[in-house]
Amino acid sequence: MSEILRRQIEKITPLTDQEFEYILSHFTLKKFKKHQILIQEGDTVQNDYFVMNGLLKASYLNKEGKEHIMQFAMEDWWITDYQAYFNQTEATFTIDALESTEVLTLSLYNREKLCADMHKIEHFFRKKSNNGYIALQRRILSLLNSNAKERYEQFISQYPTLLQRLPKTLIASYLGVSRETLSRLSV
Amino acid sequence: MSEILRRQIEKITPLTDQEFEYILSHFTLKKFKKHQILIQEGDTVQNDYFVMNGLLKASYLNKEGKEHIMQFAMEDWWITDYQAYFNQTEATFTIDALESTEVLTLSLYNREKLCADMHKIEHFFRKKSNNGYIALQRRILSLLNSNAKERYEQFISQYPTLLQRLPKTLIASYLGVSRETLSRLSV
Repeated sequence: MSEILRRQIEKITPLTDQEFEYILSHFTLKKFKKHQILIQEGDTVQNDYFVMNGLLKASYLNKEGKEHIMQFAMEDWWITDYQAYFNQTEATFTIDALESTEVLTLSLYNREKLCADMHKIEHFFRKKSNNGYIALQRRILSLLNSNAKERYEQFISQYPTLLQRLPKTLIASYLGVSRETLSRLSV
Repeated sequence: MSEILRRQIEKITPLTDQEFEYILSHFTLKKFKKHQILIQEGDTVQNDYFVMNGLLKASYLNKEGKEHIMQFAMEDWWITDYQAYFNQTEATFTIDALESTEVLTLSLYNREKLCADMHKIEHFFRKKSNNGYIALQRRILSLLNSNAKERYEQFISQYPTLLQRLPKTLIASYLGVSRETLSRLSV
């Protein structure tokens, strides 16, 4: 099942069987039940999570108890609290499982070791980070420029699979629109 | 003056004089006058820009003629239309000079060549991209969760230098608040 990780890396750089085995030896398989919490706000963050199957979300609970969603992650996506992970600070986000989920975890130590050992893995993670940066810029532009209807339409066209698997309340929190507005749009 | 670039790289990885000379040989010095346009929406994007002095902005003009600001860049910052640059597609953003500005330009070809030639430069750009990703996540959370007053206060504390150099209208466009709201906050 780790083949899904290999396919993702090989979209950017080819690997021998031996290289992939070496890479994989730096990851640990973990399983989480639906509703289980992987990271709680305030935790130190040990791992980045590569989702093999299932669905996770990273969210921020504000002082008034309102939840804002930073990120979802389904199969073939990565998720963690990146600020806390990279800077080894306390988590701002809570990460929990929306479905039962299997992940490959990668500690920061192992990530940096892999990147130092294998130039092609450093290349892979640079490319992934560049792509992530572009996606976040698009989301910022959407938050600055698009109304609720446009944001919802962009979400549907970007993530048709997610739409089927997420309750509308969570999509509304991700898009920064009210549940009521989204209901009017999605009938 | 290219020492500013060397210092930035050396915060992440040490360089010999020879290595830095080799790196620098992949950049080209360019000067832009105040108000000059570096990239126009619809252009193909050749370069990433490292600012040595001056001030640039990347903005999006929507159908109604409203300007949204994706990014500013002063000394020691990088700026381009990253989607267009990395994917070699047409620019969505316009980049122009708010002050007379000197930059070092890096083409995508030269960036990839440097990263392939020198593992430590791939490492540098991966780290920069990770930091950029974290900064954009913070900005998204601020757009989702913070009101105009909080956004303005975050901006002041993050970018005290920029505050002095930017007209309020541009700060308002960056924060996604109205000019009138910002005026009330900044008196």
